Amino acid sequence: MIRELTIPTPEQACLVDITGQIVQTVQTSGVSDGTAFLYVPHTTCSLTIQENADPGVPHDLLLVLRRLVLRRDPEYRHVEDNSAAHLQASLMGCSHVVFVAGGRLVLGRWQAIFLAEFDGPRTRRVLVKVVPDHP
Amino acid sequence: MIRELTIPTPEQACLVDITGQIVQTVQTSGVSDGTAFLYVPHTTCSLTIQENADPGVPHDLLLVLRRLVLRRDPEYRHVEDNSAAHLQASLMGCSHVVFVAGGRLVLGRWQAIFLAEFDGPRTRRVLVKVVPDHP
Amino acid sequence: MIRELTIPTPEQACLVDITGQIVQTVQTSGVSDGTAFLYVPHTTCSLTIQENADPGVPHDLLLVLRRLVLRRDPEYRHVEDNSAAHLQASLMGCSHVVFVAGGRLVLGRWQAIFLAEFDGPRTRRVLVKVVPDHP
Repeated sequence: MIRELTIPTPEQACLVDITGQIVQTVQTSGVSDGTAFLYVPHTTCSLTIQENADPGVPHDLLLVLRRLVLRRDPEYRHVEDNSAAHLQASLMGCSHVVFVAGGRLVLGRWQAIFLAEFDGPRTRRVLVKVVPDHP
Repeated sequence: MIRELTIPTPEQACLVDITGQIVQTVQTSGVSDGTAFLYVPHTTCSLTIQENADPGVPHDLLLVLRRLVLRRDPEYRHVEDNSAAHLQASLMGCSHVVFVAGGRLVLGRWQAIFLAEFDGPRTRRVLVKVVPDHP
Repeated sequence: MIRELTIPTPEQACLVDITGQIVQTVQTSGVSDGTAFLYVPHTTCSLTIQENADPGVPHDLLLVLRRLVLRRDPEYRHVEDNSAAHLQASLMGCSHVVFVAGGRLVLGRWQAIFLAEFDGPRTRRVLVKVVPDHP
């Protein structure tokens, strides 16, 4: 069963911490031990798992991605003027795997799950499937 | 069961849209609802899920990767002269997870699955496993 | 069942080949045909699958990542002075999917699984779950 989250992104480029919604989705699934597959069905945003304790980390991540992939470039051919967002999204990736144990997400102490928006603000979808170890 | 696709890549660096072959593989598997795992058993090509509506997007993706990872560099140590291809491949990644529902791949409206070739032309293999939700 | 590896990383930035430990974990699981999910519960190291035949490849990978994401930058805001490690880790990713067939990992001829350390030396954890195709 595919569960769907709706995530508004407030800025052109931002990291939105969606750990709470993923945790809730896992709980709703009723799966105690299993694996959660996460997927964004978009081409200009991504999923990344990073530290959320210090807001400096998301800031610096976006800073570096902005420098690596320039917003404007005379050689870009994409007609919609958001090439950078596509490229940043491909660098981060759109699918992830996370474990579930005892009904809880198995994240490292400093890990949080972020939707990485590169072409917002928009409303994004995140798809989640929680597969039990012993069906 | 691991299914295998054979994908010829026509250029040194190119994105080959393999969505059709993946769709066909999912149909052949007979799985209606499940999860498809994709894997390339190579170190100089990748899988990426991106827009295929405008060919400008693949063009710009390759352009940026070429600039980020230079083909020649006096400090490279790899003896085969294709270091850039290895690094570009690691940036994009070699495995992906996609959902299957009602016998169809669950892709976003603009999403296509690409084999990203960085050291072609070659013939590449893509491995696919489709796991049903309810075995 | 989540299995856990403990991996010491000897340098500030290095690629540690953990293929042997993953192979052993798969063997211990007793799963003949299935899928292995790999996960690092950290925010400054990653998993990447790359060539290990020539040590030049890991060297060049780290070289390029060091150039793409500078260790020091006047605009970084993260207080712990390891922003670069966080960003490099997000570029590589923390989860991977690998197939198992006949009790063996299905890797390409040149592929090895590396823990990519960007903020060592440390002792890192790698989580592995091996899910059989036919439970």
